[in-house]
Amino acid sequence: MNNKKRPLILITNDDGYRAKGIRTLTTYLKDIADIIVFAPDQPQSGMSSAITSINPLRYFLYKEEENVTTYICNGTPVDCIKLAMNVLDKKPDMIFSGINHGSNAAISVLYSGTMGAAIEGCIYDIPSVGMSLCDFDSDADFSQSGLIAAKIAQNIWKENLPKGICLNVNVPKGEVKGMQIASQTKGKWTNEFFASKDAMQNDIFWMSGRFDNWEKENKKSDEWALANGYASVVPVKVDMTHYEIIDQLKHWEQEVFTK
Amino acid sequence: MNNKKRPLILITNDDGYRAKGIRTLTTYLKDIADIIVFAPDQPQSGMSSAITSINPLRYFLYKEEENVTTYICNGTPVDCIKLAMNVLDKKPDMIFSGINHGSNAAISVLYSGTMGAAIEGCIYDIPSVGMSLCDFDSDADFSQSGLIAAKIAQNIWKENLPKGICLNVNVPKGEVKGMQIASQTKGKWTNEFFASKDAMQNDIFWMSGRFDNWEKENKKSDEWALANGYASVVPVKVDMTHYEIIDQLKHWEQEVFTK
Repeated sequence: MNNKKRPLILITNDDGYRAKGIRTLTTYLKDIADIIVFAPDQPQSGMSSAITSINPLRYFLYKEEENVTTYICNGTPVDCIKLAMNVLDKKPDMIFSGINHGSNAAISVLYSGTMGAAIEGCIYDIPSVGMSLCDFDSDADFSQSGLIAAKIAQNIWKENLPKGICLNVNVPKGEVKGMQIASQTKGKWTNEFFASKDAMQNDIFWMSGRFDNWEKENKKSDEWALANGYASVVPVKVDMTHYEIIDQLKHWEQEVFTK
Repeated sequence: MNNKKRPLILITNDDGYRAKGIRTLTTYLKDIADIIVFAPDQPQSGMSSAITSINPLRYFLYKEEENVTTYICNGTPVDCIKLAMNVLDKKPDMIFSGINHGSNAAISVLYSGTMGAAIEGCIYDIPSVGMSLCDFDSDADFSQSGLIAAKIAQNIWKENLPKGICLNVNVPKGEVKGMQIASQTKGKWTNEFFASKDAMQNDIFWMSGRFDNWEKENKKSDEWALANGYASVVPVKVDMTHYEIIDQLKHWEQEVFTK
């Protein structure tokens, strides 16, 4: 794969092209790669792998700089990857998504637009990485995350990634002690809504809540790594089949269907 | 779990509360269960596990009938499950999502709002099932799918589902020969956009395409089952970690971080 001198990296995110996270990611990766940014024209947080089918998509060339060409698109993060892969002349060697403002560890991988884009890249068989910093501040310090992204890109360029997986990389706030290859922490969000009223005194509900970690002592989980100052790297697979259960459910084929 | 006589089933979908699919599902399940419908007030196809955080959610009691209470909500399918679980007095015994107008087999599980809701139910540790009919017609015949849903509900009520999995059930158009417990077919969508122009002659792109099946001969895959007249049932897991790869990537912990 690496008989080329410089890779071409496609970058997107879910916070939109203006966010500090994607600008930092671009800054760190453009030293080692040619960059195409193809990012949402507005925030698309929590969009998961959502796609746009009822409305048309559009994209525009926004800026051309040395090593970096930036397009903006009116779709979701997955729309951005799909459209970029269909309209661009060159196929990227890697896809990076982020750096997200806030954690996408544990089950947040399911809701994350950042990770939706990385999973989509993986469907296209392109080594793909979602990067997130555990800091919601719009002016957070993304420099450590940018450095880690560049190192991961260099490693992928050297040895590739196994087929059918992408990486969910989360970086803790503050000093980073190291990196841990980890698993998706089991748990769920609780107290998920803040109840309020609108101007007409109608009930409204804002998404909120806190993560209830069901395996706090699991030192192999991504939440443990982050809580202890390590960047977590979870290999995420596109195939959601629970193969081990198939045999256990086999008797349904007769029982459920014929009764 | 089944010391109660009748289960309580929470129903949602991604086509909105008016769709024939959800109305048929309700008709077939209300004979065996008390039903709460908590469904999007408008179509939410392709919304995956998207959640709404920038805007507030609202819900309204729409209708009360014998055994069926219907609420409508301005959110995505996952928002509907989350809000229902937070505001309703009673915890449902099962969650059914659908019946979707169109297939959610193969990798469509990743984009599907129907399956987003089923996966969310699973996160809440409630046996959850996404139902889809491989027919996009808004007036399709959902009766076979309704029967299958009712049989699956009765089986779950009898023997429960293994923890941490939900079911992705797809029903072929026309005669159904039987049911197969299957795996998520590997492949990807190709020719994904129909390029067109708006009234101002600007380029626009409509999502389109066809599924390129990478394992047409795999008789254990859901696409094979459907192509051969069987309803497919894929056990889907919430944990997307690719555990087998973790050891293979372990050397990154030193190499990537310290270099």
